[in-house]
Amino acid sequence: MKKRTRRSPCPVACALDLLGDRWTLLIVRDLMAGKTHFHEFASSPEKISTNILTDRLEHLQRSGVIDAVASTLRTGSKAYELTPLGRSMRPVLQAIKDWGLTNIKGTAARIATEQDSVGRVS
Amino acid sequence: MKKRTRRSPCPVACALDLLGDRWTLLIVRDLMAGKTHFHEFASSPEKISTNILTDRLEHLQRSGVIDAVASTLRTGSKAYELTPLGRSMRPVLQAIKDWGLTNIKGTAARIATEQDSVGRVS
Repeated sequence: MKKRTRRSPCPVACALDLLGDRWTLLIVRDLMAGKTHFHEFASSPEKISTNILTDRLEHLQRSGVIDAVASTLRTGSKAYELTPLGRSMRPVLQAIKDWGLTNIKGTAARIATEQDSVGRVS
Repeated sequence: MKKRTRRSPCPVACALDLLGDRWTLLIVRDLMAGKTHFHEFASSPEKISTNILTDRLEHLQRSGVIDAVASTLRTGSKAYELTPLGRSMRPVLQAIKDWGLTNIKGTAARIATEQDSVGRVS
Protein backbone atom coordinates (compact mmCIF):
# COMPACT_ATOMS: atom_id res chain seq x y z
CA MET A 1 0.00 0.00 0.00
CA LYS A 2 1.21 3.50 -0.80
CA LYS A 3 2.85 5.16 2.16
CA ARG A 4 0.98 8.19 3.43
CA THR A 5 1.10 10.55 6.34
CA ARG A 6 -0.35 8.71 9.31
CA ARG A 7 -2.27 9.92 12.29
CA SER A 8 -0.71 7.22 14.45
CA PRO A 9 0.69 3.67 14.13
CA CYS A 10 -2.66 2.28 15.37
CA PRO A 11 -3.90 -0.30 12.83
CA VAL A 12 -7.49 0.89 13.28
CA ALA A 13 -6.56 4.51 12.60
CA CYS A 14 -4.43 3.54 9.59
CA ALA A 15 -7.21 1.37 8.19
CA LEU A 16 -9.73 4.19 8.66
CA ASP A 17 -7.40 6.56 6.80
CA LEU A 18 -8.07 4.31 3.82
CA LEU A 19 -11.60 3.05 4.47
CA GLY A 20 -13.17 5.53 6.84
CA ASP A 21 -15.93 7.15 4.85
CA ARG A 22 -19.48 6.34 3.84
CA TRP A 23 -18.69 5.13 0.32
CA THR A 24 -15.36 3.31 -0.06
CA LEU A 25 -16.45 0.02 1.48
CA LEU A 26 -19.67 0.05 -0.54
CA ILE A 27 -17.58 -0.10 -3.71
CA VAL A 28 -15.55 -2.95 -2.23
CA ARG A 29 -18.86 -4.62 -1.30
CA ASP A 30 -20.08 -4.27 -4.90
CA LEU A 31 -16.83 -5.73 -6.28
CA MET A 32 -17.09 -8.67 -3.89
CA ALA A 33 -20.64 -9.16 -5.10
CA GLY A 34 -19.53 -9.39 -8.72
CA LYS A 35 -19.91 -5.84 -10.03
CA THR A 36 -17.03 -4.66 -12.17
CA HIS A 37 -18.09 -1.58 -14.16
CA PHE A 38 -18.56 2.07 -13.28
CA HIS A 39 -22.21 2.05 -14.32
CA GLU A 40 -22.85 -0.97 -12.10
CA PHE A 41 -21.43 0.76 -9.02
CA ALA A 42 -23.39 3.89 -9.92
CA SER A 43 -26.62 1.89 -10.16
CA SER A 44 -26.35 0.48 -6.64
CA PRO A 45 -29.28 1.51 -4.44
CA GLU A 46 -27.26 4.04 -2.44
CA LYS A 47 -26.96 6.16 -5.60
CA ILE A 48 -23.37 7.28 -5.24
CA SER A 49 -22.74 10.42 -7.25
CA THR A 50 -20.47 9.99 -10.27
CA ASN A 51 -17.88 12.46 -8.98
CA ILE A 52 -17.59 10.67 -5.62
CA LEU A 53 -17.45 7.33 -7.42
CA THR A 54 -14.66 8.55 -9.71
CA ASP A 55 -12.75 9.89 -6.71
CA ARG A 56 -13.11 6.69 -4.70
CA LEU A 57 -12.14 4.43 -7.60
CA GLU A 58 -8.95 6.47 -8.09
CA HIS A 59 -8.32 6.38 -4.34
CA LEU A 60 -8.77 2.59 -4.25
CA GLN A 61 -6.42 2.16 -7.23
CA ARG A 62 -3.74 4.36 -5.67
CA SER A 63 -4.07 2.38 -2.45
CA GLY A 64 -3.63 -0.95 -4.21
CA VAL A 65 -7.11 -2.22 -3.32
CA ILE A 66 -8.40 -2.46 -6.91
CA ASP A 67 -6.95 -2.69 -10.39
CA ALA A 68 -8.38 -1.18 -13.54
CA VAL A 69 -8.44 -3.56 -16.49
CA ALA A 70 -9.87 -3.48 -20.00
CA SER A 71 -13.52 -4.40 -20.03
CA THR A 72 -14.36 -7.61 -21.81
CA LEU A 73 -17.97 -6.48 -22.13
CA ARG A 74 -17.66 -2.91 -23.38
CA THR A 75 -14.94 -2.12 -25.91
CA GLY A 76 -12.88 0.84 -24.78
CA SER A 77 -14.31 0.75 -21.26
CA LYS A 78 -12.53 0.02 -18.05
CA ALA A 79 -13.51 -2.63 -15.57
CA TYR A 80 -12.32 -2.93 -12.02
CA GLU A 81 -11.27 -5.91 -9.96
CA LEU A 82 -10.11 -6.43 -6.42
CA THR A 83 -6.43 -7.06 -5.85
CA PRO A 84 -5.35 -9.60 -3.21
CA LEU A 85 -5.26 -6.64 -0.79
CA GLY A 86 -8.84 -5.80 -1.68
CA ARG A 87 -9.98 -9.40 -1.31
CA SER A 88 -8.35 -9.46 2.12
CA MET A 89 -11.00 -6.98 3.28
CA ARG A 90 -13.66 -9.69 3.27
CA PRO A 91 -13.59 -10.23 7.07
CA VAL A 92 -13.99 -6.49 7.62
CA LEU A 93 -17.02 -6.35 5.34
CA GLN A 94 -18.41 -9.50 6.92
CA ALA A 95 -18.09 -8.10 10.45
CA ILE A 96 -19.78 -4.83 9.46
CA LYS A 97 -22.54 -6.71 7.64
CA ASP A 98 -23.13 -9.01 10.61
CA TRP A 99 -23.23 -6.06 12.99
CA GLY A 100 -25.70 -4.21 10.81
CA LEU A 101 -27.98 -7.22 10.35
CA THR A 102 -28.03 -7.88 14.09
CA ASN A 103 -28.36 -4.34 15.34
CA ILE A 104 -30.11 -2.19 12.75
CA LYS A 105 -33.77 -2.95 12.22
CA GLY A 106 -34.99 -3.37 8.70
CA THR A 107 -31.65 -4.27 7.16
CA ALA A 108 -31.50 -7.16 4.73
CA ALA A 109 -28.74 -8.83 2.77
CA ARG A 110 -28.67 -11.23 -0.06
CA ILE A 111 -25.91 -13.37 -1.49
CA ALA A 112 -25.02 -12.02 -4.90
CA THR A 113 -22.66 -14.69 -6.15
CA GLU A 114 -21.95 -18.22 -5.16
CA GLN A 115 -18.29 -17.49 -4.54
CA ASP A 116 -19.00 -14.52 -2.40
CA SER A 117 -20.38 -14.46 1.09
CA VAL A 118 -20.62 -10.71 1.53
CA GLY A 119 -24.21 -10.00 0.64
CA ARG A 120 -25.64 -6.79 -0.63
CA VAL A 121 -28.94 -5.32 -1.62
CA SER A 122 -29.19 -4.19 -5.19
CA MET B 1 -30.97 2.66 17.41
CA LYS B 2 -32.60 5.89 16.34
CA LYS B 3 -34.32 5.60 13.00
CA ARG B 4 -32.79 7.78 10.32
CA THR B 5 -33.11 8.26 6.61
CA ARG B 6 -31.36 5.35 4.98
CA ARG B 7 -29.53 5.06 1.73
CA SER B 8 -30.64 1.46 1.32
CA PRO B 9 -31.59 -1.56 3.49
CA CYS B 10 -28.05 -2.95 3.05
CA PRO B 11 -26.57 -3.65 6.49
CA VAL B 12 -23.15 -2.41 5.37
CA ALA B 13 -24.57 0.87 4.10
CA CYS B 14 -26.66 1.34 7.25
CA ALA B 15 -23.68 0.61 9.48
CA LEU B 16 -21.53 3.06 7.52
CA ASP B 17 -24.21 5.73 7.97
CA LEU B 18 -23.37 5.45 11.66
CA LEU B 19 -19.66 4.51 11.64
CA GLY B 20 -18.36 5.57 8.25
CA ASP B 21 -15.90 8.32 9.01
CA ARG B 22 -12.30 8.62 10.17
CA TRP B 23 -13.06 9.31 13.85
CA THR B 24 -16.13 7.55 15.22
CA LEU B 25 -14.57 4.11 15.55
CA LEU B 26 -11.46 5.59 17.16
CA ILE B 27 -13.64 6.84 20.03
CA VAL B 28 -15.23 3.40 20.31
CA ARG B 29 -11.70 1.93 20.27
CA ASP B 30 -10.67 4.24 23.12
CA LEU B 31 -13.75 3.32 25.17
CA MET B 32 -13.02 -0.38 24.64
CA ALA B 33 -9.48 0.28 25.81
CA GLY B 34 -10.70 1.84 29.05
CA LYS B 35 -10.82 5.56 28.32
CA THR B 36 -13.92 7.30 29.62
CA HIS B 37 -13.32 11.06 29.71
CA PHE B 38 -13.30 13.77 27.05
CA HIS B 39 -9.71 14.75 27.81
CA GLU B 40 -8.61 11.14 27.46
CA PHE B 41 -10.12 10.83 23.98
CA ALA B 42 -8.61 14.19 23.06
CA SER B 43 -5.17 13.04 24.18
CA SER B 44 -5.13 9.97 21.91
CA PRO B 45 -2.28 10.09 19.41
CA GLU B 46 -4.52 10.93 16.45
CA LYS B 47 -5.22 14.33 18.07
CA ILE B 48 -8.90 14.62 17.31
CA SER B 49 -10.01 18.25 17.42
CA THR B 50 -12.33 19.14 20.30
CA ASN B 51 -15.15 20.24 18.00
CA ILE B 52 -15.08 16.96 16.07
CA LEU B 53 -14.86 15.03 19.35
CA THR B 54 -17.86 16.89 20.77
CA ASP B 55 -19.82 16.23 17.59
CA ARG B 56 -18.98 12.52 17.50
CA LEU B 57 -19.77 11.99 21.21
CA GLU B 58 -23.21 13.56 20.67
CA HIS B 59 -23.68 11.46 17.54
CA LEU B 60 -22.75 8.26 19.40
CA GLN B 61 -25.12 9.14 22.26
CA ARG B 62 -28.00 9.85 19.87
CA SER B 63 -27.32 6.55 18.13
CA GLY B 64 -27.38 4.58 21.38
CA VAL B 65 -23.74 3.50 21.17
CA ILE B 66 -22.57 5.32 24.31
CA ASP B 67 -24.11 6.74 27.46
CA ALA B 68 -22.98 9.86 29.31
CA VAL B 69 -22.73 9.36 33.07
CA ALA B 70 -21.44 11.43 35.98
CA SER B 71 -17.69 11.15 36.36
CA THR B 72 -16.53 9.47 39.53
CA LEU B 73 -13.10 11.06 39.07
CA ARG B 74 -13.91 14.68 38.30
CA THR B 75 -16.79 16.31 40.15
CA GLY B 76 -19.17 17.95 37.72
CA SER B 77 -17.63 16.24 34.73
CA LYS B 78 -19.18 13.71 32.42
CA ALA B 79 -17.79 10.33 31.63
CA TYR B 80 -18.78 8.07 28.78
CA GLU B 81 -19.38 4.37 28.60
CA LEU B 82 -20.32 1.93 25.89
CA THR B 83 -23.88 0.63 25.84
CA PRO B 84 -24.53 -3.01 24.96
CA LEU B 85 -24.92 -1.80 21.36
CA GLY B 86 -21.50 -0.15 21.57
CA ARG B 87 -19.91 -3.23 23.06
CA SER B 88 -21.39 -5.28 20.23
CA MET B 89 -19.04 -3.44 17.85
CA ARG B 90 -16.05 -5.37 19.17
CA PRO B 91 -15.91 -7.82 16.22
CA VAL B 92 -15.98 -4.90 13.79
CA LEU B 93 -13.06 -3.21 15.56
CA GLN B 94 -11.21 -6.50 15.78
CA ALA B 95 -11.61 -7.20 12.05
CA ILE B 96 -10.39 -3.72 11.15
CA LYS B 97 -7.48 -4.00 13.59
CA ASP B 98 -6.50 -7.41 12.22
CA TRP B 99 -6.67 -6.13 8.66
CA GLY B 100 -4.55 -3.12 9.47
CA LEU B 101 -1.93 -5.14 11.33
CA THR B 102 -1.66 -7.63 8.49
CA ASN B 103 -1.73 -5.24 5.57
CA ILE B 104 -0.35 -1.86 6.60
CA LYS B 105 3.35 -1.79 7.32
CA GLY B 106 4.49 -0.16 10.50
CA THR B 107 1.24 -0.51 12.41
CA ALA B 108 1.37 -1.73 15.98
CA ALA B 109 -1.24 -2.47 18.59
CA ARG B 110 -1.12 -3.02 22.27
CA ILE B 111 -3.65 -4.43 24.70
CA ALA B 112 -4.79 -1.63 26.95
CA THR B 113 -6.86 -3.52 29.51
CA GLU B 114 -7.07 -7.14 30.53
CA GLN B 115 -10.77 -7.29 29.73
CA ASP B 116 -10.33 -5.80 26.35
CA SER B 117 -8.84 -7.39 23.28
CA VAL B 118 -9.10 -4.40 20.95
CA GLY B 119 -5.66 -2.87 21.21
CA ARG B 120 -4.69 0.70 20.65
CA VAL B 121 -1.65 2.87 20.63
CA SER B 122 -1.68 5.72 23.08
